[in-house]
Amino acid sequence: MIQASICTIGDEILIGQIVDTNSSGIASKLEELGIRVTRMLSIGDSREDIIGSLREELSTHEIVIATGGLGPTKDDITKAALAELSGSKRYVRNETQAEIITEFLHGRGLDVLDINRAQADVPETCEVIPNRLGTAPVMVFRFPERMFGHPATLYSLPGVPHEAMGALGDIMDDIVRHNPLSGITHRSLMVFGLAESALSKRIDSWEDALPPDMHLAYLPNMLTGVRLRLSIYGGDRASNLERIEAEIGKLRPILGDLIYSLEDDTLEHAVGCLLKAAGKTLSAAESCTGGYIAHMITSVPGASSYFLGSVTSYAVSVKESVLGVPEETIRTYGVVSAEVAAAMAEGVRRLTGSDYAVATTGLAGPDGDGVNPVGTVWIGVAGPDGTVTESKVYHNDRKRNIERFTASALDLLRRTLLRSVGSEG
Amino acid sequence: MIQASICTIGDEILIGQIVDTNSSGIASKLEELGIRVTRMLSIGDSREDIIGSLREELSTHEIVIATGGLGPTKDDITKAALAELSGSKRYVRNETQAEIITEFLHGRGLDVLDINRAQADVPETCEVIPNRLGTAPVMVFRFPERMFGHPATLYSLPGVPHEAMGALGDIMDDIVRHNPLSGITHRSLMVFGLAESALSKRIDSWEDALPPDMHLAYLPNMLTGVRLRLSIYGGDRASNLERIEAEIGKLRPILGDLIYSLEDDTLEHAVGCLLKAAGKTLSAAESCTGGYIAHMITSVPGASSYFLGSVTSYAVSVKESVLGVPEETIRTYGVVSAEVAAAMAEGVRRLTGSDYAVATTGLAGPDGDGVNPVGTVWIGVAGPDGTVTESKVYHNDRKRNIERFTASALDLLRRTLLRSVGSEG
Repeated sequence: MIQASICTIGDEILIGQIVDTNSSGIASKLEELGIRVTRMLSIGDSREDIIGSLREELSTHEIVIATGGLGPTKDDITKAALAELSGSKRYVRNETQAEIITEFLHGRGLDVLDINRAQADVPETCEVIPNRLGTAPVMVFRFPERMFGHPATLYSLPGVPHEAMGALGDIMDDIVRHNPLSGITHRSLMVFGLAESALSKRIDSWEDALPPDMHLAYLPNMLTGVRLRLSIYGGDRASNLERIEAEIGKLRPILGDLIYSLEDDTLEHAVGCLLKAAGKTLSAAESCTGGYIAHMITSVPGASSYFLGSVTSYAVSVKESVLGVPEETIRTYGVVSAEVAAAMAEGVRRLTGSDYAVATTGLAGPDGDGVNPVGTVWIGVAGPDGTVTESKVYHNDRKRNIERFTASALDLLRRTLLRSVGSEG
Repeated sequence: MIQASICTIGDEILIGQIVDTNSSGIASKLEELGIRVTRMLSIGDSREDIIGSLREELSTHEIVIATGGLGPTKDDITKAALAELSGSKRYVRNETQAEIITEFLHGRGLDVLDINRAQADVPETCEVIPNRLGTAPVMVFRFPERMFGHPATLYSLPGVPHEAMGALGDIMDDIVRHNPLSGITHRSLMVFGLAESALSKRIDSWEDALPPDMHLAYLPNMLTGVRLRLSIYGGDRASNLERIEAEIGKLRPILGDLIYSLEDDTLEHAVGCLLKAAGKTLSAAESCTGGYIAHMITSVPGASSYFLGSVTSYAVSVKESVLGVPEETIRTYGVVSAEVAAAMAEGVRRLTGSDYAVATTGLAGPDGDGVNPVGTVWIGVAGPDGTVTESKVYHNDRKRNIERFTASALDLLRRTLLRSVGSEG
């Protein structure tokens, strides 16, 4: 198995100013190719550290992917360090990147300064993958076997996350072209509503009966549930896929509508697909989730074709006056109750004229109401066939309770839509 | 200067399944103490890698903080590796942690299994800092000079982020007690409305005149603006603080209300403080920000004392029917306009009866409206003194445009409140 190392360069990581999300994004792409990442490293903007660490990583890995330290200012010294490491005697200007830099800055109403232009100059020892999302190009250094005891390739990417992620497709293509990958066939499916351990228990006899060359991974996530991924290394892709499909076919009756997608997906996207396919519209009424459901739904491009809007009814007065929740319902059952969740969903459905509506009322914490435990949420979903409610209790801090409440609400909405308008296809 | 290394243990990081946020949280705490983090490292759940890497880090750093690999299951082998590294012959049960484990699991309605109880067993070579937020305790290994050429301390923390962060206070206290720190005096202030480069230009003569022992750092963040931090190493804390205050005093007339807080802060918290102090209430009407303003405001514990609620008016029909934006205003000026932003703010203020209201309408992308560039937002703030509007254009992707729109809206709200109800204190 080919081994890779990911190296992040920049003082801003080491002082804790920013969280490194690039390494994780790169690692998951490498993993999909069947390349094993054995180390991640963050080092500062120091010539000695950059050269020393990269030399060490290249000695122990076939592939090293470095991000950061390529900005136009004096403290970014990665390019000079890479020139030294690769024995480059001079810089050459990459004309494609030079044009991109000019367009990029002009598009923002900025002048092109010499320090900007210099970003297109790269060590003669590297190949360039142009970066269309920013000014620093991707540099590829291929080291012959005699340097590190094995052929090694170093990719140097800009540190700005969307630029680094934008370059990944080209880099993975380059890796596939230059490495004897045995190939890996993957299929993912998304499950919501069971914790990893409970899910594992539920499917253990199916899992035990999997063919020995088929590997199952559990990839849990707070907002999207558990991604189950089946992989086969090597072999013929078409027949691998067929065999994986057959195993997924056996799993579907065991999990039923706990499976919400047969590919890598999110709940908000799955809900959007169901609504779009049925030509139906949605609204939301939020108390404890405070706008996060609306935010997740509208994070999907094109959500305006099915999402009409929402009301965050943080104050009781807004629940009553805007959503029309009867004062008596609140007095009788309390704000955190099935009855109020239902009335909120029905209220916002009426207010916006949407086909479906989802609502939440609960206690994200840290303060409670003296009745329900902190972490309690009631969810209501209203639609043409009536209203359903569901309750959950989570044991997290405020931020994570809000996330869990939101995911649970999207999931009840999804299951309701599924019964009402379609199949999870 | 004392040097530290941070080491994350766990396969789930290396396959890109989760983003490591612990390292950044730990680094910023160490930086505040004046301890320099020179490396961060992520390695897998392999006994050989754990022992080899930690040995290397302990040879080159006085402090090593490791997180992860302490779970109850078989794949978590950090504790065994640490026992081996420290020459421990046996495990001893930490009674305090054993009690916490019992309480923790019972509180969740779970039985205490042997594998849970075993989490309270630690190598005899370590000291324990109990972990009240979870089951795995913090272990502290102190290595004498003869082992690594200098006295070195290894802290092993659980990998669950809120448990790791919860343990940091105790760990920093331990570091301060056991190390000859020269001490560092910090003060931060928060600036919004100028990019880092424009801010640097605006304050360059003030910056050039800073005493040579006073260090200025720019810490930019998408959602909170730029944090300016002044530090002095060594010396007397009280007189240092006085000198820093004097420099901040000179900066205030230069930046005026671009400064929104004289401590590390967020816009949503600063807005909350102004409202709370004035006893005023707030509501929001969101189009392009899709609920994110409400989410940010309600992410502050206690927001229910001033935030009444919001309307996400994604569809034009909701702008008209719920918020009462006149159809003619939309027809005449277009949805993305000062007039619609103002009408939305005034509409939600009227609807909820709040003292103030903030509204957004714009294009987060990827699709445009053929008139305004993608990245355009109009913000409206309505209050007892009337309505103000402001427009911005950003050049980001959908997700980051939504974040910038939200921060800009919170900032216009803040500046309006400042003029209307109070001082930034």
